[in-house]
Amino acid sequence: MKLLEERILSEGKAVSEEILKVDSFINHQVDPVLMQQIGETFAAHFRERGITKVVTIESSGIAPAQMTALALGVPLVIFKKQPSKVFGDNMDQTIVTSFTKGTSYELTLAKDFISQDDHVLIIDDFLANGEAATGCIRLLRLSHATVAGIGVLVEKSFQPGRQKLTGQGHEVYALARIKAMEKDHIEFLPADDETQS
Amino acid sequence: MKLLEERILSEGKAVSEEILKVDSFINHQVDPVLMQQIGETFAAHFRERGITKVVTIESSGIAPAQMTALALGVPLVIFKKQPSKVFGDNMDQTIVTSFTKGTSYELTLAKDFISQDDHVLIIDDFLANGEAATGCIRLLRLSHATVAGIGVLVEKSFQPGRQKLTGQGHEVYALARIKAMEKDHIEFLPADDETQS
Repeated sequence: MKLLEERILSEGKAVSEEILKVDSFINHQVDPVLMQQIGETFAAHFRERGITKVVTIESSGIAPAQMTALALGVPLVIFKKQPSKVFGDNMDQTIVTSFTKGTSYELTLAKDFISQDDHVLIIDDFLANGEAATGCIRLLRLSHATVAGIGVLVEKSFQPGRQKLTGQGHEVYALARIKAMEKDHIEFLPADDETQS
Repeated sequence: MKLLEERILSEGKAVSEEILKVDSFINHQVDPVLMQQIGETFAAHFRERGITKVVTIESSGIAPAQMTALALGVPLVIFKKQPSKVFGDNMDQTIVTSFTKGTSYELTLAKDFISQDDHVLIIDDFLANGEAATGCIRLLRLSHATVAGIGVLVEKSFQPGRQKLTGQGHEVYALARIKAMEKDHIEFLPADDETQS
């Protein structure tokens, strides 16, 4: 998505070879019009797949996931990050460890909102090592739902997230794919909406 | 907002005299079309106020705040909940204690995103004791920004949040106002969009 790549080049900050800050338009301050365009791009690609729900993990994926769900005309389900195991209350949980942040949380889903009849599109802001998306998929399997694909805004293609997910048969659709970064320099691979459309 | 009151009556669960669950369309599963209608309702009311930013606290307010910001044509800023004080990195923080949940967090704002030129609309899902909104206002004051008002989806009118905020001169605009609840019974006051339009 040229528009997203241009924003990453003009406003993103490559802090190191691993860390990209996009705080001014995705993570902390959010450009609502860009989120709408992102939602419409995901919806255009996934429209004919029989998707019944969009899911995301709180909280940076919520704005683009809301716009994707709106464009697809299906509900959004937000998987919650609990610091520790929550018992009772009809919940499924799975532990997710973020190598990037060095933290763990219990990804949590109330069983009421995903069923075996659901075909689910996962939306998230970043794909790096794929821990968060893999945690989502584990929870969706516990509900016997099926996965339509994983849509991400920014993929760090030099990390193994995509391989992990495609290796399990899941489609990854990334709107910006970072081949390599160093301080103040960012290099892209062709994004999925550019190679597939 | 009749539509929101109807959803609360049909899908909300008054668990006790204090706790209302709206997990199936606001907090956990989200109805993206309802969020769009909510965003447009807030935008219609606050449109002529010179608002420059919409802010919310992660994470249940993000979907309606995204739609409000989109309808107003201004950026959204998400105030983050940090479990503990974060030093450096050009951050303002203020501690917020939730009486409802019995927990505390450091509400966090990167100084880059709110300035003294900003006139800010605060959007949140619930207003009860007003701790979260008051924390937002404290952070906005640290940036010397001004507050245009507080838009909430659901106000628990039997708790003192509104009085605290209006007592400081802030407008509260609530789309559903709960007068009283008991298990499986919910009673409303007239909502602000019904009395003011």
